[in-house]
Amino acid sequence: METLQIQAQHVLSPTHFMYSISAKLTPRLCYTSSKLRALCTSSLNLNNTHDLTDAPIPKKTIRKDSFRVRVKVSDAQLKENWLASLSYPFPDKQEESGTGGDVPQSNVGPEWVIGIDPDLSGALAVLKTDDSGCSAQVFDSPHLQVLVGKRVRRRLDAKSIVKLLRSFDAPIGTTAYVEQSIPYPQDGKQGWWSGGFGYGLWIGILVASGFNVVPVPSLIWKNEFELTGNCCSKDDSRRVASTLFPSLSSLLMRKKDHGRAEALLIAAYGKGLKMKLDSSCISEKLMP
Amino acid sequence: METLQIQAQHVLSPTHFMYSISAKLTPRLCYTSSKLRALCTSSLNLNNTHDLTDAPIPKKTIRKDSFRVRVKVSDAQLKENWLASLSYPFPDKQEESGTGGDVPQSNVGPEWVIGIDPDLSGALAVLKTDDSGCSAQVFDSPHLQVLVGKRVRRRLDAKSIVKLLRSFDAPIGTTAYVEQSIPYPQDGKQGWWSGGFGYGLWIGILVASGFNVVPVPSLIWKNEFELTGNCCSKDDSRRVASTLFPSLSSLLMRKKDHGRAEALLIAAYGKGLKMKLDSSCISEKLMP
Repeated sequence: METLQIQAQHVLSPTHFMYSISAKLTPRLCYTSSKLRALCTSSLNLNNTHDLTDAPIPKKTIRKDSFRVRVKVSDAQLKENWLASLSYPFPDKQEESGTGGDVPQSNVGPEWVIGIDPDLSGALAVLKTDDSGCSAQVFDSPHLQVLVGKRVRRRLDAKSIVKLLRSFDAPIGTTAYVEQSIPYPQDGKQGWWSGGFGYGLWIGILVASGFNVVPVPSLIWKNEFELTGNCCSKDDSRRVASTLFPSLSSLLMRKKDHGRAEALLIAAYGKGLKMKLDSSCISEKLMP
Repeated sequence: METLQIQAQHVLSPTHFMYSISAKLTPRLCYTSSKLRALCTSSLNLNNTHDLTDAPIPKKTIRKDSFRVRVKVSDAQLKENWLASLSYPFPDKQEESGTGGDVPQSNVGPEWVIGIDPDLSGALAVLKTDDSGCSAQVFDSPHLQVLVGKRVRRRLDAKSIVKLLRSFDAPIGTTAYVEQSIPYPQDGKQGWWSGGFGYGLWIGILVASGFNVVPVPSLIWKNEFELTGNCCSKDDSRRVASTLFPSLSSLLMRKKDHGRAEALLIAAYGKGLKMKLDSSCISEKLMP
């Protein structure tokens, strides 16, 4: 049943109509009409022919056509589509920096990696690499108190997050690695809602602010730093982050600093990924 | 215990540090240091002295100082803070339109109201009012299929939502009324996560894209259109929306069009709010 609904939705393009609000008012054409219709067409096609220029599917996975392989390709395609949907749609636009779009971003200034623990007690880490070396920054996630019914709860502060990200002046298309939100089964429904909210808020702000988001399951980045298994706790994240970023260790001493530690490690994981892909950086090692 | 933790978090400012990534690299000052520190200070103050220029608290509520009144003020303050945290932080910036910040937005072009049903099967409605009358548009929320574990699920498409919003060329600071996410207690945890994700994603994209978000509980906007109570279903939303927007009625005929209907009604509710506040529009009535 659900599958059928999904298929039906796929046939439907995002609707675009322009009518007068009541019969008394003369209907008129929308001046952005053609532009929007074009957009809708592009959205419709997105499920099947999403723009994959940034991350093409390796040819070997789409050459074969047995059912088994096709299913595999379809899974890969779904993953690629998801990733593509988390990228900034206007990669050539230099809205704020004032520089033209002619110069490739990778050759301008330092190389940036952002790491985010999207929890309410999470943090954002920024790693920058240039000719003089690497530098790291970490920021607790801005939050505020809100009334939910009669209870006071903490919630992420969208405006302050937007301000924080803008203050970096990071190049358009900088990759932000965000820990994937996978709530614990034992968490309550409020925890599940809150996990989804924080994850969605960060992704929304990042994509609209010019970042490309790469979700990272916690198991993956923790595995990279041997932080998986029953023996490992949040304290171990702080220990490893302190080893990796010794100059920041004084900021990672309290139990509640685990969000900072995890943001730093997620960024370091992302940086490691970048280094593996970029042979010019291969000599640089994050792990001691 | 939770209260204590909240208090502790409030004392802590978002951390800002700049160190070299390892002892081998010379520590250096961040060129954005002062800027960022200023930002952090601003974030720190946000919980207590949030910028309320857009929506000042009426003086009568803060003049008295009995305990009961103070609690009330505190609640109002919390609500104002939440609303302020959902507003675009750079209201004077005309990033894309090319116009200067001197001309007040309210006097430029049509008046805009956006209404959003943030569910996965939701929609976005745009109402524009200018000298020639009012016009309405409605768009199904763009979504795509993603793999979650081994299951295929639908999820909102961040990139396409950003594109859609940019295509409007709405003035910076346009208000977007978003239905508040209040999951049903009988919904499963996945439903709660998904509700939080969609709500967070829309808010994040809207705030970062230059909109001011006003969350609207469904009970409030439904009450405006007499859609509350046991007798009212999603079909009734479509019926009322068709009455209010007769030219769009052909788009509201199927059961699954209720997202479109609700987005239109949320926008109409927001427009009604605006009209009540703006005497120049008071003669214009949305309801027939």
